[in-house]
Amino acid sequence: MSPSVALQLSFETLGWDEQGLWFLDQTKLPQEQTLFRPQGLPDLIDAIQRMVVRGAPALGCAAAYGLVYACTLVIDHQDMRLSLETTKELAEALRRSRPTAVNLGVGLDHVLRAAQDMSAESWQQPQSVIAALQAAAEGFHQDDRNRCQALGEQGFALLQDGQRILTHCNAGALATGGIGTALAPIHLAASRGMALEVYADETRPLRQGARLTAWEMVQSGIPVHVLPDSAAGSLLASGQIDVVFVGSDRIAANGDVANKIGTYPLAVLAARHQVPFYVLAPATTVDATCAEGNLIPIEQRSATELLGADGANGALAHHPAFDVTPADLVTGIVLEDAVYQPGSKSWAQKVARLRA
Amino acid sequence: MSPSVALQLSFETLGWDEQGLWFLDQTKLPQEQTLFRPQGLPDLIDAIQRMVVRGAPALGCAAAYGLVYACTLVIDHQDMRLSLETTKELAEALRRSRPTAVNLGVGLDHVLRAAQDMSAESWQQPQSVIAALQAAAEGFHQDDRNRCQALGEQGFALLQDGQRILTHCNAGALATGGIGTALAPIHLAASRGMALEVYADETRPLRQGARLTAWEMVQSGIPVHVLPDSAAGSLLASGQIDVVFVGSDRIAANGDVANKIGTYPLAVLAARHQVPFYVLAPATTVDATCAEGNLIPIEQRSATELLGADGANGALAHHPAFDVTPADLVTGIVLEDAVYQPGSKSWAQKVARLRA
Repeated sequence: MSPSVALQLSFETLGWDEQGLWFLDQTKLPQEQTLFRPQGLPDLIDAIQRMVVRGAPALGCAAAYGLVYACTLVIDHQDMRLSLETTKELAEALRRSRPTAVNLGVGLDHVLRAAQDMSAESWQQPQSVIAALQAAAEGFHQDDRNRCQALGEQGFALLQDGQRILTHCNAGALATGGIGTALAPIHLAASRGMALEVYADETRPLRQGARLTAWEMVQSGIPVHVLPDSAAGSLLASGQIDVVFVGSDRIAANGDVANKIGTYPLAVLAARHQVPFYVLAPATTVDATCAEGNLIPIEQRSATELLGADGANGALAHHPAFDVTPADLVTGIVLEDAVYQPGSKSWAQKVARLRA
Repeated sequence: MSPSVALQLSFETLGWDEQGLWFLDQTKLPQEQTLFRPQGLPDLIDAIQRMVVRGAPALGCAAAYGLVYACTLVIDHQDMRLSLETTKELAEALRRSRPTAVNLGVGLDHVLRAAQDMSAESWQQPQSVIAALQAAAEGFHQDDRNRCQALGEQGFALLQDGQRILTHCNAGALATGGIGTALAPIHLAASRGMALEVYADETRPLRQGARLTAWEMVQSGIPVHVLPDSAAGSLLASGQIDVVFVGSDRIAANGDVANKIGTYPLAVLAARHQVPFYVLAPATTVDATCAEGNLIPIEQRSATELLGADGANGALAHHPAFDVTPADLVTGIVLEDAVYQPGSKSWAQKVARLRA
């Protein structure tokens, strides 16, 4: 971990204030910067499904706070009693909201462990239980902030003044409880007066690059150019990009990287044009039990999401959410503690430690 | 040229009937299949600018018919006389409608030559002039049909039953006066009972793949899968594609190919995964005076077209309309008379003939 002061951005993705749980509503960005506050448990679950909050680390924090919020609803209700059993049931309801998001479950389990640690007497005083769960959720959120900051410092050491960075999708503050993963070094560099330029792939079909990464860079005063995903090839060929930074949804033990669809072609083109290609993620993203990338299941998204209202009637859709970049195209995997070269001895040792 | 019977599709892109000039309105596809009929010259120019009709060969035919249409407006007008001078002025007005479309000018010049061949006496009988210009425009359209058919036969010889073809943008019948360029072999194969499947890149930002190629394939009963542009990489890696067919906007003398943005990454990925990559275009697309691809000017399109209503305020856009694929990534250039390997002696000879 870096000894430096943690960076605070001009916005946060989610939190808990005197009025309770809130999310920055990402379905409204970039046009409107409004806070979403859940009106009951079904409303909270609906918000997670509609991607009011998204991004694996952010979902973990949202679920942790969400479980505390659900418990407060119980004690506010005259006829109901808060118990460990009820808390577990609420956690399961939240867990089902997005079944593929591993981090969501990690956040819930963190708060559930705090609930399980409470004595029988404590459950007689539900407000003290809520306070303990609240502390657990805040601790989880703080851990995420620390992970982002540490990752960011590792990535920052790779950057030089004046560089132009290509990124894909949104692996930024909006996807975490802190300053992001792939974008964390860029926020740090900007805060330290470094002049950088970011090129953000639009990222079809949900346009997280055009909507979220671009907004996030503008908030930090960083020049950002949005490009069609298909324009990254000629951009890399032109020599206008110094380095590629992307996030990851899962990293296999051999260093193969699953990430948002379109990451693999970027890696191939970066290698062809000798542009370094880095993957930035917390160590929790490394699936030490998964030997290689072709064992990672790839979610297929709906035809409607891709074809929309003006797709041709009768056309099919090939619409995978992720692709896998082979380890040999990855210059480095940036974790909280170091930058690892896939295939190196230090990477093998790191994976062994994570498996243990 | 092939001796086979020319294929007629179930739709045409443009034509002239008893009510006059019509275009299949491509801004309304695929939801509505309606004909656009111009209501005066400004309306015709506006339609060309709005891409009611688009695609280089189709624009040539549209301009040829458009000039005839403009002349009919003159003779319908009591106070005006049709003359060679007026005809030339009308041609210039049409030529300015889309200044970068070379084929548009070629179509106009073809009809203008017919006007210049008319005797002074003929201009006293404007209806006979119109008939001659009309014949010239129809001849130009028929030449385009013949070019597409011949190209299609060359490409057809490359296909085998059961193959899966990846394409980009729309280089189909909707882009020509005939059965298309890159899609012509596929229409021919389907009409001859071959079972093929087409994978069509969505093609951001105007979605010509999702809207036009998909619609065109459905009309011919050919199974078509639309994919995000960014998904072509993992699709090629998966072994699910047998061949890539694309069109071209300009081919340099050395075989470098300018085409819709996103073509270059497809070529890089096809080469990586040993999938043949063919460019199909009429010989008029070869710019024998242009030595190599980096001399081809690349049009930058507007930020608004890319960012739309939900782009982040303050973000810039990197939005080139085309990219250049180096000749060494092109398996073959399919022209009307043969399939050429860039760098081969036969290609050099062909370019020399075209330059002459």
